[in-house]
Amino acid sequence: MSKVKPALLRGFDQEYLPREQLQFNALVDLIRRNFELFGFLPLETPSAERKEVLTSKGGIEKEIYGLRRLADDPDDEAATKGAMRFDLTVPLARFVAMHERELAFPFRRYQIQRVWRGETPQARKGRFREFYQCDIDIIGRERLGYLAEAEIPGVIYRVFREMGIGEFLIRINNRKVLRGVLQNFGVHESKSSAVLRLLDKTEKEDAAHTRKALGQEGLSAKDADRLYDLIAGKRGTQATFAALTEMAPNDTLRQGMEEARKIVAAMRDFGVPESAFAFDLGVVRGLDYYTGTIYETSLVNSPEVGSICSGGRYDDLAGYFTDTRLPGVGISIGLTRLFSRLSEAGLLKAPRRTPAEVLVTTMEDQPMSAYLELGRALREAGINTEVYLEPAKLRKQFEYAERKGFRVALIVGGDEAARGAVKIKDLAARTETSCARGDLLRSVANMLQLPVA
Amino acid sequence: MSKVKPALLRGFDQEYLPREQLQFNALVDLIRRNFELFGFLPLETPSAERKEVLTSKGGIEKEIYGLRRLADDPDDEAATKGAMRFDLTVPLARFVAMHERELAFPFRRYQIQRVWRGETPQARKGRFREFYQCDIDIIGRERLGYLAEAEIPGVIYRVFREMGIGEFLIRINNRKVLRGVLQNFGVHESKSSAVLRLLDKTEKEDAAHTRKALGQEGLSAKDADRLYDLIAGKRGTQATFAALTEMAPNDTLRQGMEEARKIVAAMRDFGVPESAFAFDLGVVRGLDYYTGTIYETSLVNSPEVGSICSGGRYDDLAGYFTDTRLPGVGISIGLTRLFSRLSEAGLLKAPRRTPAEVLVTTMEDQPMSAYLELGRALREAGINTEVYLEPAKLRKQFEYAERKGFRVALIVGGDEAARGAVKIKDLAARTETSCARGDLLRSVANMLQLPVA
Repeated sequence: MSKVKPALLRGFDQEYLPREQLQFNALVDLIRRNFELFGFLPLETPSAERKEVLTSKGGIEKEIYGLRRLADDPDDEAATKGAMRFDLTVPLARFVAMHERELAFPFRRYQIQRVWRGETPQARKGRFREFYQCDIDIIGRERLGYLAEAEIPGVIYRVFREMGIGEFLIRINNRKVLRGVLQNFGVHESKSSAVLRLLDKTEKEDAAHTRKALGQEGLSAKDADRLYDLIAGKRGTQATFAALTEMAPNDTLRQGMEEARKIVAAMRDFGVPESAFAFDLGVVRGLDYYTGTIYETSLVNSPEVGSICSGGRYDDLAGYFTDTRLPGVGISIGLTRLFSRLSEAGLLKAPRRTPAEVLVTTMEDQPMSAYLELGRALREAGINTEVYLEPAKLRKQFEYAERKGFRVALIVGGDEAARGAVKIKDLAARTETSCARGDLLRSVANMLQLPVA
Repeated sequence: MSKVKPALLRGFDQEYLPREQLQFNALVDLIRRNFELFGFLPLETPSAERKEVLTSKGGIEKEIYGLRRLADDPDDEAATKGAMRFDLTVPLARFVAMHERELAFPFRRYQIQRVWRGETPQARKGRFREFYQCDIDIIGRERLGYLAEAEIPGVIYRVFREMGIGEFLIRINNRKVLRGVLQNFGVHESKSSAVLRLLDKTEKEDAAHTRKALGQEGLSAKDADRLYDLIAGKRGTQATFAALTEMAPNDTLRQGMEEARKIVAAMRDFGVPESAFAFDLGVVRGLDYYTGTIYETSLVNSPEVGSICSGGRYDDLAGYFTDTRLPGVGISIGLTRLFSRLSEAGLLKAPRRTPAEVLVTTMEDQPMSAYLELGRALREAGINTEVYLEPAKLRKQFEYAERKGFRVALIVGGDEAARGAVKIKDLAARTETSCARGDLLRSVANMLQLPVA
């Protein structure tokens, strides 16, 4: 028979072998547990939404995947009127507008799902056309106080601390402060978006290039230099505040500074230590959407990994769908990319538990029912256990155990059966002990560092 | 501003409010935990696969969704050569063929993901165009013994027992037995697929209709009656075996019976009690793909829910992709449908934990930092806690707590602060107690029935 080549599609090719999938799932569990610890409620939305919903906020048509039936069906609404989501914010906006009356506000939701984007994939950089995002947002109805902006870094701090991926820095800035600074430099409102886009790239672009481009937006050479140094200079929180205080104040700047100081103080109350954050004017974020605090997070010792999490405060989530004003703040972890970069940087730990904890090896001259009973007893104690179903040479069974990554193997041959004992092999340490059948659960749980059931 | 209507697409409209989503997630967690308990490893595959991969096993083109860019892009492989998966078996076959050398066999994998099918949606019946499947399979290389066929019901039994959805029955049958029976009735090999399809519908079709159709396939009226009664009559395992033993034996029947008896005996060793399964000739399953044991599971007291889980033994998973013979056995839970039917039948329990465990209420005349510190302490103890961020009338905060489903509210006013105490409100029982700050974690953990941290 002629064969079909088993292969994947470009950009839809991030697939893990079981060991990696376990690591990935452990990250998802960790993120989810921490999101729930702060009272965020889970949401999952359908993969496809109405086109007019997806494009309402200005989704870019050429990057959106639509659906079609392989054999056309004009009655299929998803195929004729739908497309796949490209982020989790637009579906959230649609969801909140649809269920405004059923939700309790402030509405705190988390969402961990795949999104699809027709961008150029770069597997090496962890960029795919299908990837996971993990989002949290806090949405107020009509109003939302500044404390929500301080809580978000509190959540993120706990997530990355528990991940144990080394030192990280939550960099925050404030859009009002940025606007105040631009006013101060005489940048006209109509030019401010363009200037912010230039300032967003100071970490990637050559300084001379940016200064020149600022000049083209109307700044004098001296002002362009001063603005560039203010934004791109790394100072730390206190020095940045001091630099801003020295500037001639205007209302926007004053208001932004006041907000920023309060939020920074509250972040400490939310448990973010001084060493883990910085107020940094270089965090700009391109989107006009943001109006208050904006966030970027990066790894101190692995800057090549890039931003691992970003977001910000916005004034109105769902203006395209409802007249109710829904101010909010949110942040997103691009998990597929993060996983791939952490994996490359060697920063991923083995998950604490795996389905391959105990392998009960089997021998032909012993009754299978005794092995199966052993397996059941271990499972009832919450220990993940597989019974090797086809009695074979022990060497073959150990080979299987090694490949699959089992931690413990149990052996009951004629000798052990006669003595009511079980031989326990620690597959990592390559040591072997023996215990009475009655002590087995405790011994194995100990070896796996599980609470004794 | 003119608004976009926030609405969903027909068939892509199964979306849960947070409380339901929590119930759904609790089911997924339970299923996953039990799959892992038996040593099944996790797998996730991309949403889109190559068209020739998807259709290799005879996927039905008109039911498959393809992708396209909203603005066409001839360079996008997913849009030009890909389509969305319609089940989890074809991606598994492709995966195993691709990674044959990297996997340990028997390969035990579970997969819990969405699939997409262009069928007619019926929300009332829990049928959607996008839905979750939860699959397990055990794949051997070149060979796979019969014990794997007995283990699958062992897993399924544990899953549904823990779900606590009432009495259920795992009905099994054996394709070899069925083929032996047909041989016995003189049904020619070329007619057996058609006859099996008729017998597959005895529970839905009128008896007279099926008997007549069997006649059209060449059976005498007497044989059609006898065959119908044999297949459709509900007898229980022992009576069915007895009825089969009375038939004139042929090799296929003899072999099938021997297998069936061994598998039934081993199912008991895997912990499936007599009351939870039946060997039932009425379980036929349309697909030619199955060659050994086949499974269907249903709720004894809610037959209207229909089959909640089905699958079977097959001879070769990935013959379209590789020359290696990969015999296997697997089963699938259609989770979206199951959830919707269980919900309708009132069989879903509230999840044991929710992100809304403790609400720390706040008052304007007390320092917010004290409340935030309380929240941190509870979270460090693993208790899901939200601090109400905008001090307001207590009535308003309790309203929020009720809507979101919090279990406990904490109150620290001036009195409590002065005494170093905390008032604890059990929101379900509507009772109130008070305790010293130092005893708070233990009191709250007790109230929530969590292990004390």
